[in-house]
Amino acid sequence: MEELRALIRDIPDFPKPGIVFKDITPLLASAEGLRGVVRAFSERHRAGVDFVLGIESRGFTLGAAVAYELGVGLALARKPGKLPAATYRATYELEYGSDALELHQDAFPRGSRVLVLDDLLATGGTARAAIELVEKVGGRVVEADFIIELSFLNGRKRLAPYPVHALVSYEKQ
Amino acid sequence: MEELRALIRDIPDFPKPGIVFKDITPLLASAEGLRGVVRAFSERHRAGVDFVLGIESRGFTLGAAVAYELGVGLALARKPGKLPAATYRATYELEYGSDALELHQDAFPRGSRVLVLDDLLATGGTARAAIELVEKVGGRVVEADFIIELSFLNGRKRLAPYPVHALVSYEKQ
Repeated sequence: MEELRALIRDIPDFPKPGIVFKDITPLLASAEGLRGVVRAFSERHRAGVDFVLGIESRGFTLGAAVAYELGVGLALARKPGKLPAATYRATYELEYGSDALELHQDAFPRGSRVLVLDDLLATGGTARAAIELVEKVGGRVVEADFIIELSFLNGRKRLAPYPVHALVSYEKQ
Repeated sequence: MEELRALIRDIPDFPKPGIVFKDITPLLASAEGLRGVVRAFSERHRAGVDFVLGIESRGFTLGAAVAYELGVGLALARKPGKLPAATYRATYELEYGSDALELHQDAFPRGSRVLVLDDLLATGGTARAAIELVEKVGGRVVEADFIIELSFLNGRKRLAPYPVHALVSYEKQ
């Protein structure tokens, strides 16, 4: 996955001083990069997934393309107030305060095998909330997959016992 | 496109009283629906597009899947403050106040043929801003495509002279 790594660029001090942001826009802008990530996730889950759940908003990009390639449906985990029908909500802690995700109560049939997809695993709060929502709707989380894992933030531990897979891992900022 | 229309549901009084929201989540959740929209856009633009621009955030879903199917790169038009590198910005008017979109200055090479994709064409303000951004980066807008056009809001006129294509059109709310 070194080709993928070369397409991820570091942006220092974004969104605030001291943070090095991992920018995947060059990866998405590369036809080969986009194809590479979509195929990597799809080949891993071929025939084992009924739905893909994309997390707002970069997770929507991967989620849709992987659902399309797998020939399954796409569900969207969104920020509060964005989904128009009846939703479940899961909150998660941030450094200061909290945020939440919502999922339509009828996002997929009960018993569906659901692949959770987002671009980046940091502390795991967002993905944890997405997993909770899948369970509330009655789905079964097959795995939570990411392009990037910031392994020094231990997000994988927070998602246990659910399986986690990332294409590229960074062991320090 | 009657099969697609059947997968779009009306949500009355969302996001506020008197508005009937066109909810595409059932369409995205349907493997056939997702495949249908991605193929409709892709077959229309096969070999004629170098980049797809997805507009935040539902446009990210379509944009990524269509870019993947066409074998081209994806660019993201985002709400202010979300893109980490140097951006251009275009503002647009809302009923009360204004909003803006941003695009990375290096989103695609100058001269690229760019397909602008979003889920819904209403008054056209957002898409107009996205088109302006493509021009600022030096791209050429091939077409602005949507799943849904609310033709009674005349958004198509606001996007002239750029070509517009929608899969499903509603002539009244």
